[in-house]
Amino acid sequence: MTEENHENREGFVLHGAVVYSKDPRTLMAYDDAYLVCVDGVSMGVFSKLPDEYADLPVEDFYDKLIIPGLIDLHVHAGQYQYRGIGMDAELIDWLNDYAFPEEARHSDLDYAERAYDLFVEDLYVGPTTRAAVYATIDPDATLGLMDMLEDTGLKTCVGKINMDRNAPDYYIETTEESLEMTRAWLEAVGESGYRNTGAIITPRFTPCCTRELMNGLGELSKEFGVPVQSHLSENLREIEWVKELEPEASFYGDTYERAGLFGASGRCIMAHCVWSGEEELALMKKNGVFIAHCPESNINIRSGAAPVTRYLEMGLRVGLGSDVAGGSTTSMFAAMRTAIFASKLRWRLMDQSVRQLTFPEAFYLATKGGGAFFGNVGSFEKGFEFDAVVIEDEPLRTMRKEKGAGERAERVIYLADDRHVVGKYVAGRKLF
Amino acid sequence: MTEENHENREGFVLHGAVVYSKDPRTLMAYDDAYLVCVDGVSMGVFSKLPDEYADLPVEDFYDKLIIPGLIDLHVHAGQYQYRGIGMDAELIDWLNDYAFPEEARHSDLDYAERAYDLFVEDLYVGPTTRAAVYATIDPDATLGLMDMLEDTGLKTCVGKINMDRNAPDYYIETTEESLEMTRAWLEAVGESGYRNTGAIITPRFTPCCTRELMNGLGELSKEFGVPVQSHLSENLREIEWVKELEPEASFYGDTYERAGLFGASGRCIMAHCVWSGEEELALMKKNGVFIAHCPESNINIRSGAAPVTRYLEMGLRVGLGSDVAGGSTTSMFAAMRTAIFASKLRWRLMDQSVRQLTFPEAFYLATKGGGAFFGNVGSFEKGFEFDAVVIEDEPLRTMRKEKGAGERAERVIYLADDRHVVGKYVAGRKLF
Repeated sequence: MTEENHENREGFVLHGAVVYSKDPRTLMAYDDAYLVCVDGVSMGVFSKLPDEYADLPVEDFYDKLIIPGLIDLHVHAGQYQYRGIGMDAELIDWLNDYAFPEEARHSDLDYAERAYDLFVEDLYVGPTTRAAVYATIDPDATLGLMDMLEDTGLKTCVGKINMDRNAPDYYIETTEESLEMTRAWLEAVGESGYRNTGAIITPRFTPCCTRELMNGLGELSKEFGVPVQSHLSENLREIEWVKELEPEASFYGDTYERAGLFGASGRCIMAHCVWSGEEELALMKKNGVFIAHCPESNINIRSGAAPVTRYLEMGLRVGLGSDVAGGSTTSMFAAMRTAIFASKLRWRLMDQSVRQLTFPEAFYLATKGGGAFFGNVGSFEKGFEFDAVVIEDEPLRTMRKEKGAGERAERVIYLADDRHVVGKYVAGRKLF
Repeated sequence: MTEENHENREGFVLHGAVVYSKDPRTLMAYDDAYLVCVDGVSMGVFSKLPDEYADLPVEDFYDKLIIPGLIDLHVHAGQYQYRGIGMDAELIDWLNDYAFPEEARHSDLDYAERAYDLFVEDLYVGPTTRAAVYATIDPDATLGLMDMLEDTGLKTCVGKINMDRNAPDYYIETTEESLEMTRAWLEAVGESGYRNTGAIITPRFTPCCTRELMNGLGELSKEFGVPVQSHLSENLREIEWVKELEPEASFYGDTYERAGLFGASGRCIMAHCVWSGEEELALMKKNGVFIAHCPESNINIRSGAAPVTRYLEMGLRVGLGSDVAGGSTTSMFAAMRTAIFASKLRWRLMDQSVRQLTFPEAFYLATKGGGAFFGNVGSFEKGFEFDAVVIEDEPLRTMRKEKGAGERAERVIYLADDRHVVGKYVAGRKLF
């Protein structure tokens, strides 16, 4: 780096307690450290500030905890209004009674604007810096949501949902209009000039998408070079239904693979994977598919608990999703603790061959695990995009003196909420 | 009631949305109702205020939700400082590494005062109105905690813990001193003039209490007419250990029964009962023992998930416990939702013969179910002591229009925290 570069670069230093994941088992915890950002990228974490960064301004969060921004790999903005209710229902009934009627309302653009505003504001003040978001089938409302998200500075990819079968009359598309609207929406996104917001192809799930639609979406994904997200092997009844609908597919994931929607030609997130079999897992590994593990939703809708430590040990790519409104909250603190809850009960009640998720592993999933979908994201290692959340944990009062930064981070995921998020940076930009 | 009584009585009316449990399956929900309190007792809930109460002052919570005060049947004040950490450990290690060292610190009365102050302040501002509390083995620190709780106006019973075996040198009593200190403590409580706070005999659990100690505690319970609380059938390793320690007992609960500590002669709470067998359950039913179901703790320490709907259907007495610090939080909203989580995963992963806990049942457990330990408590039916919590749920923003009071209450248990508790009454006394 020349002197000139050095002088012109934009950078800053955060000082405080710092915690981040190196890998699923290795949590790096510094009680007192300097975190250096230059041109939106982390230069690393230092116990003593290196001389080469001595000219950078330092923001002192000396009594606060700094962690990577949290990554929500699966959340339905179009379901935000009914979060926390209807929890006595199971998946298919829940879709018909809650999801479809509520999502359909967003075709009223005035409603959509006011509803999405609540979602966006709550996401903004929490610990999430990046998210993969489902909107609804309405492309204009989806663009409206994308405009709002763009303005926040959060990094998101947002999907207009596609569905042309097994949906109510009031909330369904023909195959042709679904593909046409998706193309027009992708073109509009291309012309938008968004810097923070991208499109993601979003077939709802196999039961709601004909093969023709899936094939068309696979082509659009390739043509526009955009990633894909959908749902996979969530619920036992759903999996049986997919077998009936697509008897020629070898397994549920194969219904996406056949349409080019399963990661072979671009980034792909599949939510849930509670009951994925060996063939499906092998193909996900081969294709680099991201699993969005959504523990609270999987509990609430009584789907089960994915063997997430097994997926990590197999080398699969795994992150966490809040899955609002199957999950009740966009809080990724809650998603981390609920992932631990689910893994412990799975171990105790069902299968002691798959061990529980530890706190460092849960932290990894919500940061570096999911962050990888967005690139070098979710860690403070040198070269990672600088997403950071500053947490004031002092109000979680304790007399305990021996606590270090790692212990403070564990308390945060059990006890903290939006109140404790006092600073947020995304790709080096300070949001608040 | 004569005219004179009518004029002299102290009473008031709360106006708002009102939700309470009649029985486990019946949630009463009023969108717009009057809740009448006279002399600390509920006169019932009315859609139109009856003429006979027209002279009472009305406090208008027109856009807020009023529910019964929540009842925490099992919480360790002496473990409050390490809530939210150490969650990768299982019961016996967790006791040795976290519980015993921290509890022992409370023998320093200055430490105890500052530590208990954090617990008491947090309990005060949350939705809990009554609790059964464990202190530590130190009787003076326990009295200090009771003084603080007395001042809050919350109704609690508090136990000095007894333990004379299988505990570290730095945190153990001889049998003799345990019984002597307990007697002295009970006498001090008797002389204290407490109106809100009572003593409860608290053998830690069978592994930590010799037969001689248990017998002595059983006698003290009878002599002083105070209730009993302990732990029962929480963890599989613990149950094996009890079998080794007490081979003559027919089952774990029998070790308490033989000492007169299992509800036959007075009120009794047994925490957990995750793995109770038929004989144990039958004796609990016969003796009217209260089960404190502690779902988060049972998950965190990997004990399991109690078949709580089965217990309800058997007619057992069941309430909820936060079990801090096996549980991370004193929030009984969290205890309710976690009870539902645990029951759903138990159903899906282990045993479909025991159905999931519904939202109305979880609400019942945290109110009328646990409240019965304190008398006619936990409901707004006529004749119940007037414990009420006023919840401002508007900040849990939603566009959803069709929501009624029952739906609002469900959202609250998934999404609310202390911020949303804006009013609290205990036995007719307004705390804030």
